[in-house]
Amino acid sequence: MAVTSIDVARRAGVSQATVSRALRDQRGTSEATRRLVREVARELGYVPLQSGRSLSTSRSRRIGIVVGELTNPFYAALVAPIVHELDARGYLGVLLHDGDIREPDSAPIFDGSFDGIVLTTTSDSRLADEIERRGVPYCLINREITGRRTASAHVPDNVRGAELVAELLTGLGHVEIGVIAGPATTSTGSERLHVFRDALARNGIALHPDAVVEVPFAIDDGCDAARTVLAARPGLTALFCANDVLAIGALEAAAQLGRRVPEQLTVVGFDDIPLARLRAFDLTTVAVDLTALARRATAHLLDRVEDPQVEPQRAVHEVRLVRRGTHAAPPS
Amino acid sequence: MAVTSIDVARRAGVSQATVSRALRDQRGTSEATRRLVREVARELGYVPLQSGRSLSTSRSRRIGIVVGELTNPFYAALVAPIVHELDARGYLGVLLHDGDIREPDSAPIFDGSFDGIVLTTTSDSRLADEIERRGVPYCLINREITGRRTASAHVPDNVRGAELVAELLTGLGHVEIGVIAGPATTSTGSERLHVFRDALARNGIALHPDAVVEVPFAIDDGCDAARTVLAARPGLTALFCANDVLAIGALEAAAQLGRRVPEQLTVVGFDDIPLARLRAFDLTTVAVDLTALARRATAHLLDRVEDPQVEPQRAVHEVRLVRRGTHAAPPS
Repeated sequence: MAVTSIDVARRAGVSQATVSRALRDQRGTSEATRRLVREVARELGYVPLQSGRSLSTSRSRRIGIVVGELTNPFYAALVAPIVHELDARGYLGVLLHDGDIREPDSAPIFDGSFDGIVLTTTSDSRLADEIERRGVPYCLINREITGRRTASAHVPDNVRGAELVAELLTGLGHVEIGVIAGPATTSTGSERLHVFRDALARNGIALHPDAVVEVPFAIDDGCDAARTVLAARPGLTALFCANDVLAIGALEAAAQLGRRVPEQLTVVGFDDIPLARLRAFDLTTVAVDLTALARRATAHLLDRVEDPQVEPQRAVHEVRLVRRGTHAAPPS
Repeated sequence: MAVTSIDVARRAGVSQATVSRALRDQRGTSEATRRLVREVARELGYVPLQSGRSLSTSRSRRIGIVVGELTNPFYAALVAPIVHELDARGYLGVLLHDGDIREPDSAPIFDGSFDGIVLTTTSDSRLADEIERRGVPYCLINREITGRRTASAHVPDNVRGAELVAELLTGLGHVEIGVIAGPATTSTGSERLHVFRDALARNGIALHPDAVVEVPFAIDDGCDAARTVLAARPGLTALFCANDVLAIGALEAAAQLGRRVPEQLTVVGFDDIPLARLRAFDLTTVAVDLTALARRATAHLLDRVEDPQVEPQRAVHEVRLVRRGTHAAPPS
C-alpha cells in the first residue's frame, strides 16, 4: 500500500538513487530534477522513511536537547535558536527534561537515537560523565564543567559580566550589597558569584554571609531568596542576581515588600532575556547575545557530528552592561 | 563490544524475555527480579535499544509536539506539563516547530517515528488534514478545528470566558472598548472575539472596526496592536486581549504611552499564565488550569495510542475570572 521511492522513481523517470538524493537536497541532481521529483513525491504522497535515512547514513539526524524547566523563560529563550539552527541544517531537536536523565546510566538519550546532545543544564555532572563514556558528541551551552576536554562549551563572559556589575554598584556608592546566586553546582551560579565577590573585595567591600543565597534559577525562588536576604539584612541597598529570571523574582519581592526600585533598592540581572526590556521590569542587566551563542554552539556541534575530526571548541561570548531603570545610588 | 540483553540475562540468571520485561516495567516479573535485572544492567552498562523496542511493540514511544514560538511564554507553560505527562507514561516528547511542518506533505512527523501528535498551534489546518489522512492519533490542545471528528480536543471554555470579561467591563461602565484578538485562523482568536462581540451587543455596545486588531499571539505584536487601536480610537477605556501574552504587550504599550493602568485604561487577558500574577503585571484575566488541561489531553492521547478502540474526546475545561489590578471603572 505505502508509496515507496521506487514508485516515485518510476513515475518521474529517474533512478531510485536520484529520488533519494533529490529529496535530501544533496548534490548530484539538477534543480529541475529536484523540482520534478518533489512534485511527483507530493502527488503520490511519498514520505522518505527516517529509518531508511538512518540506515544509509548511520545517523539519526536527531539531536537531544537537555533543558531544565521549560516554564523558565530563560530556557525558552535558549531553546528557540537551538531548534532553528538544527532545522536549518536538517536535524530534529528532541527536548529532554530532567525526568529523562534522572538515571543517567539508563537514560533514553543513550539508546543510539541521537547523533549529538546539547546540554543547557549541568547541575548533575554524572550525565556529562556518561555522555563522555559513550563517546556521543555533545556541547554545553551557557554552562561549563571544569576539566572536560572532549566537550565543546559556549558560555557568556561571566568574569567580565560580574566585574561590570561590581563596577556599576561600587561606582554608584553601594556598600551594603546582596547576591541572589544560582546553584553552586552550575558554572553560571558559582562563577558569577565568586568573580563578583572578588571584585567587591578589591574595592574594600565584603559580602556578608547572610546577604548571599544560592537558589535554583526560577522566578519564585528568586522572590523567596530576595525576601530572605532583605529580612536578614534590611540595610541592603543593592542586589546582584545571577540571572534575569532571579532578578524578576527579586523585583517581585521588592514590590511585595513595598521597597521602591531603584530609589530604595537597586536590582541588577544577567543575560538580558526578552522580558528584561519590558517597562514592567526595565531591568538593568548584563547582555549576552543568547541567540548568537546558541546558534553558534549548535552549528559547531553539528560540524562535529558530521566530521569527527572537528575538535571540541570552547568559546567565550562577549557581554556588555545594559543600563535600564533598576539601578541608582543608595538612598542617603 | 556492545553489551546485549543476552549478556544481562546470562549474568542475572534469567531469560532474555525477562530482562526485556523487567527493564520496561511490564507485568510478569516480580519486584525482586526487576531490581536484580536493573542492577546487573547498570553494572554491565546495558541500555535497551530504542529500535529494538520499536520492533517488538511496533511503537516508537515518541510523541511529536507541534508548538509555535518557544519564546512565547504561553507555549512554555503548556509544553512543560505535556512533557511531564509523557515522561510519567514512558514516552519521549519531540518538539516540532513551524519549520518542521512548513510543508505538511513532506514533514518529518510523517516518517513513522511518532506514535501520536499533540497540536498546540493550528494556524495552518493543512497539517491536521495531513495527519488525519495518514491516520496518526492526534490531539488538539487549547485549539480546535471545526468539523474534525477524529481529533481529540481539549480547550478552555472560551465562550464562558469571553462572556465573563464582557460582564466585567460592562458592569464597570465601559462603553468604548477595544479588542486585541489573536489570529482569526485560530479558535482561541476567533471564538474569544466573536463571543465577546455578541455579549457586548446584547448590552447595546458595538465594537468599532478600528478598535479591533487581529495579531499573532506574541508580546511585541500585542504591544504594536494596542498602540494602533489607541491611536485610532484615543477614547478607548478598556482593552480585552485574547490571551495574557497579548495583554502583557498591551500593558507595555500603555507604559510607553504614559496611560496609567487601570485608572486610564483597563486591560484584561485570558489564560492566567504564571507571569500574569507577578506584581509587575498584576493582570486581571480569565484563568484556565493549563497544567491540568495539558496533562489530561496528553493522557487521553496516550490511551488512544495504546488502544485504537478508545474514541476521540472533546473536553471543555472550566474557566473563572481572576480579578487582579488591571481593571477599574472608566475615568469620568
